Amino acid sequence: MSEHNIRVPVKDLVDFMIVALSKMGVPPEDARIIADVLITADLWGVRSHGVAHLKMYHERIKIGLQLPVTKWKIVKDTPTTAVIDGGYGMGMVVGTHAMRLAIQKAKKLGLGAVAVRNSSHYGVAGYYPLMAVKEGLVGLSVTNAHPSTAPTFGTKPMLGTNPIAVATPTDEAFPYMYDASTSVIPRGKIEVAARANKPIPEGWVINEQGTAVTESITIISEMNKGNVALLPLGGMGELMGGHKGYGLSTFVEIFSAAFQNGAYLSMLHDTDHDGKTQFLRIGHFFLAINVEHFIPLEDFKYITGNMMRELRSSRKAADQPRIYTAGEKEYFNTKRNQADGVEITPGVQKALQVLRKELDITGNDLGF
Amino acid sequence: MSEHNIRVPVKDLVDFMIVALSKMGVPPEDARIIADVLITADLWGVRSHGVAHLKMYHERIKIGLQLPVTKWKIVKDTPTTAVIDGGYGMGMVVGTHAMRLAIQKAKKLGLGAVAVRNSSHYGVAGYYPLMAVKEGLVGLSVTNAHPSTAPTFGTKPMLGTNPIAVATPTDEAFPYMYDASTSVIPRGKIEVAARANKPIPEGWVINEQGTAVTESITIISEMNKGNVALLPLGGMGELMGGHKGYGLSTFVEIFSAAFQNGAYLSMLHDTDHDGKTQFLRIGHFFLAINVEHFIPLEDFKYITGNMMRELRSSRKAADQPRIYTAGEKEYFNTKRNQADGVEITPGVQKALQVLRKELDITGNDLGF
Repeated sequence: MSEHNIRVPVKDLVDFMIVALSKMGVPPEDARIIADVLITADLWGVRSHGVAHLKMYHERIKIGLQLPVTKWKIVKDTPTTAVIDGGYGMGMVVGTHAMRLAIQKAKKLGLGAVAVRNSSHYGVAGYYPLMAVKEGLVGLSVTNAHPSTAPTFGTKPMLGTNPIAVATPTDEAFPYMYDASTSVIPRGKIEVAARANKPIPEGWVINEQGTAVTESITIISEMNKGNVALLPLGGMGELMGGHKGYGLSTFVEIFSAAFQNGAYLSMLHDTDHDGKTQFLRIGHFFLAINVEHFIPLEDFKYITGNMMRELRSSRKAADQPRIYTAGEKEYFNTKRNQADGVEITPGVQKALQVLRKELDITGNDLGF
Repeated sequence: MSEHNIRVPVKDLVDFMIVALSKMGVPPEDARIIADVLITADLWGVRSHGVAHLKMYHERIKIGLQLPVTKWKIVKDTPTTAVIDGGYGMGMVVGTHAMRLAIQKAKKLGLGAVAVRNSSHYGVAGYYPLMAVKEGLVGLSVTNAHPSTAPTFGTKPMLGTNPIAVATPTDEAFPYMYDASTSVIPRGKIEVAARANKPIPEGWVINEQGTAVTESITIISEMNKGNVALLPLGGMGELMGGHKGYGLSTFVEIFSAAFQNGAYLSMLHDTDHDGKTQFLRIGHFFLAINVEHFIPLEDFKYITGNMMRELRSSRKAADQPRIYTAGEKEYFNTKRNQADGVEITPGVQKALQVLRKELDITGNDLGF
């Protein structure tokens, strides 16, 4: 183990993930799917959602929040829509099959939408729209999550971080790819601050009274008790548009749960009213749009590419070297990480060592 | 004319709007459609987008930014999708026909999406998803607009206020109805401050260097020159999620323009490079989703209604009497305004008097 970040070759990391997942009871084909979602996050530089999550999934399987074998099934099917039951399995497996189905439908009829019930954490939301982009389509996905965010004028964690992810083809080397929580920040940012023993900025989290709190370590422990909550995008009250983030988060909650008769808000706690562990029952929604049913794909790509170039080359603020477009940072991080390996922090190195021991993994040395 | 707000009965206001629009050259059936969109905004209490906009549409027709007769046509049609050319006509007319078409398609096949080119300002974005809700469907609409918002780390107005509107049925007296710009505030809020000669809060608008500016009257004049810009939802930089508002605004720009091979960003200025007036070429996107293709509508309504109730009854901040859900304020405003009449400010009274004179409207006394 190293005191510093070390870089691990992508292939080694993927192989390790597949072995670890298999040892957790995940079938080989599913393990490959999950590893692909996780490594995508690591390649983008979204460390919170990559290999670092392996241990969380292991814990959840152990205590019975989700199952390692994903017995998903289609419970409703029409030419453009479907509802899938995830069987309390692995979110990435259900998510990948659901998005594939939406893409198939969109290829035939122009549009495809699939709602998923009884799933679990599905990794980075942006992975699924990108599946559509790889096939020349536009993709969208949203998911609900464990309650963490307060409604405007409220203080109780009611909504999840509820990300919206959309991706579209462009004529550039990388697509437009938007993937962000509708809370002001994702939970992971507080964990990063807590590990560094640093306060968080005012405007991210509030306490039971609705007052801003900044002590990251206290926040982490209080959040699980429901005593503090993330603010929605736009922050406190309505002055800076907090009601917009709240409204968008509600949109995500509706799309994730109501199309599949599923669980939402407080039903997404990992224990029931009696404190008994229950299956997670996370819901997702996937939409694929076939560009060719509107205009030729090449025209679409030219327009979106041009938009990105026009935005990036517009006038910069005095202290800013450049303007980015959504998906650009992820693209450049991926190039770098593919070449040099994925950076693994000392904290994650430690967690993976524990996991290696717990799962009795003897090969697959990661170099730490 | 009154020095104060006065309330005008809804019917009188609608009749006046229809007469005024007819005098502008709008055909009677189209005038009724437009008046319905405008009165909806007034009923919601979104004064900026109601009868107050009549004068703006008149100016735009006069100088040739848009045409009073809307010769829209379907230029591409598939079972689930369509592209409509708005013929530089009235946005509400094109928008209403486009959403109707999306609804028709969704009723048959589950999903319907329509992209619109060569349109103009279409009023409140939320009107269109509500058309879907009235038919028991879920609706979504986005539109691009005149450049006013800077990308994160930029300072030039590149993107419009680019609203996202989504509405879904519930089992309550009113639906979930979200309709908000992806900029931190809509432009109208600055106009309100300017009329009252009040500064705006820091965090809404930046100047060419990227510094916050608050002088509302200066901002209005500088905005049209491109010297100041609205910030995206989430504000300046990335600390409070400004890149999220920027990314969502880009999503709206793509959906509004790229599916219909249309105009975007700087192409949406009302003058060309030589300063010559040009047609507006605004684009919209409409999506309708047939709930019954997923689960029974009654189940969907029960879930969304329950969500709204759970959110509203959750723990309130110390100084807050209540929590709202999206669409609730609009519902209660509508009830009040239907009963008591729509409040017309002295400024709008004056504008309508001018319009009455210009259009030589002799009847339709509005009581001021």
